[in-house]
Amino acid sequence: MADIHAARRTRAQQKIAESGADAALITSKPNVRYLSGLASSNAALLLPASGAGVLATDSRYAETAERLCPDLEIVTERQVEPALATLAAELGIGTLGFEAQEMTVERHTALADLPNGPGLMMPLGHLVEGLRMIKDDSEIELLARACAITAEAFAAVLPKVGPDRTERDLAVVLERAMIDLGADGVAFDTIVASGPNGAIPHHSPGDRAFRPGDLITIDCGAQVGGYHADMTRTVALGEPAAWQREIYDLVAAAQLAGIRAAVPGADIEAVDASARDLIAEAGHADHFGHGLGHGVGLEVHEAPLMGPGRTGKLIDRVPVTIEPGIYLPGRGGVRIEDTLVVRSAATRAGTVQATSEAAGAAEVLTTTTKELLVL
Amino acid sequence: MADIHAARRTRAQQKIAESGADAALITSKPNVRYLSGLASSNAALLLPASGAGVLATDSRYAETAERLCPDLEIVTERQVEPALATLAAELGIGTLGFEAQEMTVERHTALADLPNGPGLMMPLGHLVEGLRMIKDDSEIELLARACAITAEAFAAVLPKVGPDRTERDLAVVLERAMIDLGADGVAFDTIVASGPNGAIPHHSPGDRAFRPGDLITIDCGAQVGGYHADMTRTVALGEPAAWQREIYDLVAAAQLAGIRAAVPGADIEAVDASARDLIAEAGHADHFGHGLGHGVGLEVHEAPLMGPGRTGKLIDRVPVTIEPGIYLPGRGGVRIEDTLVVRSAATRAGTVQATSEAAGAAEVLTTTTKELLVL
Repeated sequence: MADIHAARRTRAQQKIAESGADAALITSKPNVRYLSGLASSNAALLLPASGAGVLATDSRYAETAERLCPDLEIVTERQVEPALATLAAELGIGTLGFEAQEMTVERHTALADLPNGPGLMMPLGHLVEGLRMIKDDSEIELLARACAITAEAFAAVLPKVGPDRTERDLAVVLERAMIDLGADGVAFDTIVASGPNGAIPHHSPGDRAFRPGDLITIDCGAQVGGYHADMTRTVALGEPAAWQREIYDLVAAAQLAGIRAAVPGADIEAVDASARDLIAEAGHADHFGHGLGHGVGLEVHEAPLMGPGRTGKLIDRVPVTIEPGIYLPGRGGVRIEDTLVVRSAATRAGTVQATSEAAGAAEVLTTTTKELLVL
Repeated sequence: MADIHAARRTRAQQKIAESGADAALITSKPNVRYLSGLASSNAALLLPASGAGVLATDSRYAETAERLCPDLEIVTERQVEPALATLAAELGIGTLGFEAQEMTVERHTALADLPNGPGLMMPLGHLVEGLRMIKDDSEIELLARACAITAEAFAAVLPKVGPDRTERDLAVVLERAMIDLGADGVAFDTIVASGPNGAIPHHSPGDRAFRPGDLITIDCGAQVGGYHADMTRTVALGEPAAWQREIYDLVAAAQLAGIRAAVPGADIEAVDASARDLIAEAGHADHFGHGLGHGVGLEVHEAPLMGPGRTGKLIDRVPVTIEPGIYLPGRGGVRIEDTLVVRSAATRAGTVQATSEAAGAAEVLTTTTKELLVL
């Protein structure tokens, strides 16, 4: 793995050189992990436009850093940012790029005020996030494993959904199943929203017991090696009412349209519209208030974000979620979400069996059925 | 609870008025939760120096916000910060205070560049964090419950520590026990560090199986109603060697000295020194590389931080951890940590039985024994 991280740093250094900075101070934790392999709550990386990088972390993580990062100089220091900024100045760095999307105003002021700090600090832009968006094989493998565990855990707990269980019960059982199947953790707090709570997209699972006639939305994901799965299914407890089946079928159709639109080169806003327009045409424009999806990787929400007004194009090897929903206040809701990898025909070949879908279609990693399950 | 949040906002408004700002844009999530009751991944609060506040959140949380915050105007908007900054300008706010410790340079630049934003933005300082440091009865009750669950879970899983278990096994079992006992979640990822791994203060529990002769450091905590317990114990598997008992006794003595020093009015650096000096005098100064402790509450690490060079005084009703350690590279380590509440005699009365300790001594919430447990 040290080789993979070294290669990522080389790519980042090319971008740093292009940015005009002499070096970059990387402070975003997922970015530090991406470039070094170290997962730490207190670490930063000084990466010059050329030459070896320096990783600063405190004594709690120093041994781990030495082991994971043989090619980096390790500085053991609690105040990692002032230590690296001062070192940068000593090394003759004139312009130090920094991550304005992560650095707080307070920390930036402290660095700018250092008596022996770098001469100039410039925002780098989302340079490392841009590199992170396109995943290599090792990353897709971890993400696929996280998604497989998620689907397997979902299948294992589904028989336990019944009128005797609460939202919280189900969330706990599902999270445990993911851990028992080998997840390193959960990707985010599991959402279980039943009956009228289904109208709240990010409902916290509570003490409400399931009742016949409920739609139950379950949004969950495993985390493996730092990579985050994200899957949502809505199931019915007892035979669904006509209105429930209607919004379910609509969301399912919109979700499939979104997946089909998610091809390399597709415009992000057009992908969003491909699903959103179906929902809007059925009169539910106001009942789908969030974006269609987002990138997933070392963060559960990362680039690219897909929604109205978002710009950019999808690219081969970019994992994203597709997750339309319909939320009817006071009544309930439906959301269906997959994690998938945008694929060209070339990179898809060999990863999955050919299907009836067009070559170049996305590789769906969360394989739980999207038929409405009636329990 | 809505009354408690309204009273907190009134106290914050006094501080905002004193700061010279016309209003504050509160963006730190724990601070938003403290002042409104809403726990959301996307919310901000506009709090004028006088008059009613405005809470912005997106459609996922809007229903919950309406229910929890009857005294606040709710704005449903995905881009919460530009929405509130623009609203502030419309309301005639000239100087808008912001939380420089939370706001990134990128988001600050976006707000400062708004064509119809406020005239001037000024850093507020850690205004709300200052209010949060001293806890009210409802907060201490939640923290005490989180600590009680932590101690009970620890007692429940301790019999399961044996040569057949791995670090990861124990971490999983312990976290489940906390949830089963009613925790809303874990306060942080549990640390289990056995044998030589004990020399790594923040070791991630791995596949190492316990062996006779190990010291095992377990750092864990439950979270209840947003409040975070934090407790560490080191236990021995089989009869400890002389060097193990020696560093254990030393850390235990240092920890007790720290607790005894944690009285209202005590200088933070002196509290740290009370424990650190004992360790240094025994020749282990270089083996205790982190601070003595930290505040706990809506964040697991919050004000006051206690370590060399930290300034300030302890105050009545401030919960902190006291957690000295000794880490011997390649051999192992010991850490002992309690969560406690700094108490004056007046506020301590009635909360716990009088003990042989001096009146005014801290109220220790994590009640697991600190005798060296030999399993």
